[in-house]
Amino acid sequence: MPQYSDLEKAINMLVTQFHSASGDNGSTLKPEEFKGLLSSQMPNLVQGIGSEQGLKDIMQKMGVGDGEGISFKHFWNLIQNVATSQHGALSSQMGSSCNCILL
Amino acid sequence: MPQYSDLEKAINMLVTQFHSASGDNGSTLKPEEFKGLLSSQMPNLVQGIGSEQGLKDIMQKMGVGDGEGISFKHFWNLIQNVATSQHGALSSQMGSSCNCILL
Repeated sequence: MPQYSDLEKAINMLVTQFHSASGDNGSTLKPEEFKGLLSSQMPNLVQGIGSEQGLKDIMQKMGVGDGEGISFKHFWNLIQNVATSQHGALSSQMGSSCNCILL
Repeated sequence: MPQYSDLEKAINMLVTQFHSASGDNGSTLKPEEFKGLLSSQMPNLVQGIGSEQGLKDIMQKMGVGDGEGISFKHFWNLIQNVATSQHGALSSQMGSSCNCILL
């Protein structure tokens, strides 16, 4: 088994987290499974999933249609959004004393 | 400092890896910096950066124009591509014995 870099492990983590959230190994997540994933894995980064409406809003932003399961592509839209926000926050803190730690 | 989940740490890793590859803390990477990032961090997942032409092809797929720096958005296109491939590979292995380890 080859050695993997931190970056490769991070990508793998994103993929496997999505995958393991599916109770029946399906290719999409049910809303309840997705909610469980967000609650356990993104409590700090994703706000507003406490309410039914908050969850609906997030799913809508991810491009999930009514009654549709959450695909990896939908999930990826969310990750992209979070990562881009983080990158923006990091960039605005840049300077000679930047230590490249964001969280 | 709050506790972060594995998923949040993974997102943070992607952001900080990109950021720390920039020698001058700029918002974009120079081609040489980008090449260094790929070589050190994605040796297994990204093939073909050994040659000048291979690197050019990858940058073109990422949407980088001639003479342009590599932005986080460009980088993200690559990550997305790699993650989607991995997810596809994982899904095709699915079954009752799936242990959710990809790499």
